Amino acid sequence: MGHLSDGRWMAAALMLSHRSRGRTAPNPNVGCVLVNDGAVVGRGWTQPGGRPHGEAMALAEAGARARGATCYTTLEPCAHRSHRGPTCSNLLIEAGVARVVIALRDPDPRTDGAGADRLRAAGIDVTTGVLEAEARLAMAGFLTRQAKGRPHVTLKLATSLDGRIALPSGESRWITGPQARAHAHLERARHEAILVGRGTWEIDRPRLDVRLAGLEHRAPRRLVLSSTGDLRSPSDIAGLEGVDHLLVEGGAEAAAAFLRAGLVDRLLLYRAPILLGTGKPALGDIGLPDLASAHGRWSLLDARQLGSDRLEVYANS
Amino acid sequence: MGHLSDGRWMAAALMLSHRSRGRTAPNPNVGCVLVNDGAVVGRGWTQPGGRPHGEAMALAEAGARARGATCYTTLEPCAHRSHRGPTCSNLLIEAGVARVVIALRDPDPRTDGAGADRLRAAGIDVTTGVLEAEARLAMAGFLTRQAKGRPHVTLKLATSLDGRIALPSGESRWITGPQARAHAHLERARHEAILVGRGTWEIDRPRLDVRLAGLEHRAPRRLVLSSTGDLRSPSDIAGLEGVDHLLVEGGAEAAAAFLRAGLVDRLLLYRAPILLGTGKPALGDIGLPDLASAHGRWSLLDARQLGSDRLEVYANS
Ligand SMILES: NC(=O)c1ccc[n+]([C@@H]2O[C@H](COP(=O)([O-])OP(=O)(O)OC[C@H]3O[C@@H](n4cnc5c(N)ncnc54)[C@H](OP(=O)(O)O)[C@@H]3O)[C@@H](O)[C@H]2O)c1
Ligand SMILES: NC(=O)c1ccc[n+]([C@@H]2O[C@H](COP(=O)([O-])OP(=O)(O)OC[C@H]3O[C@@H](n4cnc5c(N)ncnc54)[C@H](OP(=O)(O)O)[C@@H]3O)[C@@H](O)[C@H]2O)c1
Repeated sequence: MGHLSDGRWMAAALMLSHRSRGRTAPNPNVGCVLVNDGAVVGRGWTQPGGRPHGEAMALAEAGARARGATCYTTLEPCAHRSHRGPTCSNLLIEAGVARVVIALRDPDPRTDGAGADRLRAAGIDVTTGVLEAEARLAMAGFLTRQAKGRPHVTLKLATSLDGRIALPSGESRWITGPQARAHAHLERARHEAILVGRGTWEIDRPRLDVRLAGLEHRAPRRLVLSSTGDLRSPSDIAGLEGVDHLLVEGGAEAAAAFLRAGLVDRLLLYRAPILLGTGKPALGDIGLPDLASAHGRWSLLDARQLGSDRLEVYANS
Repeated sequence: MGHLSDGRWMAAALMLSHRSRGRTAPNPNVGCVLVNDGAVVGRGWTQPGGRPHGEAMALAEAGARARGATCYTTLEPCAHRSHRGPTCSNLLIEAGVARVVIALRDPDPRTDGAGADRLRAAGIDVTTGVLEAEARLAMAGFLTRQAKGRPHVTLKLATSLDGRIALPSGESRWITGPQARAHAHLERARHEAILVGRGTWEIDRPRLDVRLAGLEHRAPRRLVLSSTGDLRSPSDIAGLEGVDHLLVEGGAEAAAAFLRAGLVDRLLLYRAPILLGTGKPALGDIGLPDLASAHGRWSLLDARQLGSDRLEVYANS
């Protein structure tokens, strides 16, 4: 049975899960909070590379205070053995946790309900489905890899009000202001890899790094889409090992190729309050047969003002 | 001296002034509220064609209850004689109004401070500058005509997220949904004239009317921009008699021509949550030398959600 404060504690666990988005592939970025007598006694999140798991880290922090506690975890605790570390459902049982609240059932066939079953069999009270939709967004990389066998793809575009990404001269620095650019760098830190088309690679010579104090080491792997390069087609992303989150940063042709292939899950639109008129359009041909089929594909997830620019985040629906 | 409730009553007067936006040229669309003992005793707004003035209408409604009342008016009451009707400052004095609160001084050289002076000379308490910025927006047509000798110009664009106004086939019905389109029709009713380029006129054969129940009779005058037509250049709008508010509804070339000429005061952007890729861009060449000169020109005035579309209103700054 759910408790009144479950949503609040699960939201805290979700915040922790976001910390390691883009750094845990092929493992999910799980967040975990242990609460005893209304106080947090342990916090954990999947560590870079995928181990330790969030639950193991929170239990280590809590020590003896885990006994009788409630564990809030964004994903069902694992039930399978691994040579890389302990099984979380067993750890929770051994620590004497009284209750486990789970946002999302683990689709990994080695767990998929078996983690919750094992906890229940040990007499632990288990609640599932708390903030499930939010958990799907937070762990989208892992879930997309499980469901579709490819990374979760975010397409970033920085445009003028009239949808241009560069002047006719190719000048594109800068369309958006410093706050929007800093936000875009933070997004980079949350992806295992960034991709640009060969055109952008050669015209802009982008550094594709994370220029944010303290996060410089989080620069993702760089990929170039080119018929003669390391990634020869959008569908080749399925084979990218260790990449569960891919950020596509343009240009127009590369972005269109991903859209045409139906491989964009999330749109990150930074829009500056300027008009450019002629210039480079945001997208090449995305293969639309008519206007009707353009509708109903994108739903607004989030929007915010970043200085004088506006960020809108859309999910493919 | 100002009173605490002045802003609230002036906001009501401004609402009334909006009622006749686009119908009073060459007169300003003034709104007026008479308040006695905390209650509204008269409301008025400039009538179609420009007469009676808002103050005259409010005084007629109030009758004897105008004695000792406070008059809230969006523009300084006129001081000049006209064969078309009475002088408002005189009417207010004769009615025995105790106090007059004015948003904006009348730039018309025949009044320009003389209205307020006459009221003060008659012993009436006069306060000015209440919600002045809002009044400038509400009466922008009259003020632009006074200051620049031309109508106030709004450019409307309905685009996809990537700034397209039509598919490559020319298909553009519909990009935005019914709520956005209804809002755009309401905007039409607030302009004395609508303009499109010859391309749009011939491709879309637009009706350019007001398809809103009860407002059908508010359809503005229709103009086509064409080197061989009734309006041969954007700068010719100065000569349009009886037009203080002009709505430019595209297409890309006509819109760009107005922007290039520096003749757009207000942008009305309806944006649908769709991507189109290739297609007709929103704007042709607006003559930008570089990116830096695109910045700082537009400031966000208003934004709202209309169904699944978003409306943003920008002012030229
Ligand atoms: N404001 C922004 O957000 C932003 C972001 C990025 C870029 N830009 C601007 O965009 C411009 C560059 O854009 P662009 O459209 O010209 O170039 P682009 O999309 O960066 O690169 C085009 C190249 O990508 C490769 N490619 C595209 N589709 C492919 C597919 N399906 N399979 C394999 N390879 C594929 C091809 O490389 P090969 O020819 O080698 O096969 C193609 O020539 C620059 O001016 C840049 O400044 C702006
Ligand atoms: N989604 C929307 O909001 C929206 C709105 C309107 C239109 N559209 C679409 O836009 C497309 C049409 O746009 P368009 O750019 O091709 O045509 P357009 O802008 O409607 O018309 C172009 C014509 O306007 C005249 N013109 C332009 N600049 C001028 C200047 N400085 N002085 C005198 N005349 C000038 C010229 O006429 P002459 O050749 O006669 O000299 C020119 O050929 C259509 O597909 C339509 O569906 C979409």
